[in-house]
Amino acid sequence: MPLFDVIAFDADDTLWHTERLYAETQVRFRLLLAQYHSPEWIDERLYQTEMRNLQHFGYGLKAFTLSMIETAVELTEGRIPGREIQMIIDFAKEMLNAEVQLLEYAAETVARLAAAHALMLITKGDLFDQEAKIARSGLARHFRYIEIVSDKTRESYEALLKKHAVAPEHFLMVGNSLRSDILPVLALGGCAVYIPYHVTWAHEVTEPPPTGQAGYFQVEHLGLLPALLERLGTGMAAPHPT
Amino acid sequence: MPLFDVIAFDADDTLWHTERLYAETQVRFRLLLAQYHSPEWIDERLYQTEMRNLQHFGYGLKAFTLSMIETAVELTEGRIPGREIQMIIDFAKEMLNAEVQLLEYAAETVARLAAAHALMLITKGDLFDQEAKIARSGLARHFRYIEIVSDKTRESYEALLKKHAVAPEHFLMVGNSLRSDILPVLALGGCAVYIPYHVTWAHEVTEPPPTGQAGYFQVEHLGLLPALLERLGTGMAAPHPT
Repeated sequence: MPLFDVIAFDADDTLWHTERLYAETQVRFRLLLAQYHSPEWIDERLYQTEMRNLQHFGYGLKAFTLSMIETAVELTEGRIPGREIQMIIDFAKEMLNAEVQLLEYAAETVARLAAAHALMLITKGDLFDQEAKIARSGLARHFRYIEIVSDKTRESYEALLKKHAVAPEHFLMVGNSLRSDILPVLALGGCAVYIPYHVTWAHEVTEPPPTGQAGYFQVEHLGLLPALLERLGTGMAAPHPT
Repeated sequence: MPLFDVIAFDADDTLWHTERLYAETQVRFRLLLAQYHSPEWIDERLYQTEMRNLQHFGYGLKAFTLSMIETAVELTEGRIPGREIQMIIDFAKEMLNAEVQLLEYAAETVARLAAAHALMLITKGDLFDQEAKIARSGLARHFRYIEIVSDKTRESYEALLKKHAVAPEHFLMVGNSLRSDILPVLALGGCAVYIPYHVTWAHEVTEPPPTGQAGYFQVEHLGLLPALLERLGTGMAAPHPT
């Protein structure tokens, strides 16, 4: 019998590359405004605008695009020409249509674990964009449940576990964001495997849990996940040390 | 035993007013561009932009906002000042924060039907915006299931029915859009009640089903829905005439 009723995966930068698309777009955004401001100041103001707009627009690519436009208007005191605003919208369209590039080991790890576990995909952002990426990833068939949520908080995980009648101690979450994938699940009494990605959006950066925190694991890449699960299954690693 | 396992409601312009918010914003958008073009031409070009962008941005308020910005840039040949682009973003924020105004009879009808039926809310658009409206509507507690989808097609209804293990003949959908709420459900063999709203977005306008179409009903307003269900339950109206 598997140790977990459900193994859930984050998608962006856990199964497929996303942050680097944002980073590339941000480079182009900086170039667009290079005659007005320094790259550092542009980044800082864009981040401030994104944070301020979270309450209005939530997460996702369309929110990011609206925040880029707003930042461009502010930083140029309204002098940005319309065709450059259009360029920002075109950046978004390119991102939306970009090929989904899976992380190394993602395809084989998900296929292998799906054979013995119920897998769930939990991702946040634009419904339409996330659905399109899931479809293009080729991984959808391995997931018994796909959940696109507006935010990943303790409350949203609690609601998902309740909806699927899964006890937290039988739930494992795998992801690259301590803030969104790991800490809220540990807080509920679930298990979580942190797989760092080489770039993290500032908003998602936070302190890791204390050493020895029950249910918390870290591996270098997805290819190491099956071996960790085997160690947990044979009791060689303890999900909830007593 | 209720005739239907699930009664599902559309939200925008079925339970609460939405299209009039869009229409009001469009009036302000026309005024913004009044020195450049006629209202008719602005409307036509905005609609064309929205249709062209559906494949990139999907439905919802953020998609609408990006399409307004794109149209404004095009129609002014890039001459629109940055502060007017900001005004368009501010229109969106006002819409996102607007009070949810329930349609007449919505609150009492939903509460009454929830006592005897499993109710589902099925709405399309921005996840974040729709969740916020559902929360502010005060109606969420009456719905056993809440589904926010990126589009309402025969395939998306089929997936929802499968997910909830509901047979189409035991499913009733209530909504104001023939295209999104009525025709795809009838095509699956379900029942549908059409409640026209006084304004309909051009994209949602389509021909009604033929007279005598099995499972199709129309009422003038939500307050008439319980009586229709009673007539169906007592056999005084036939959901699927044979």
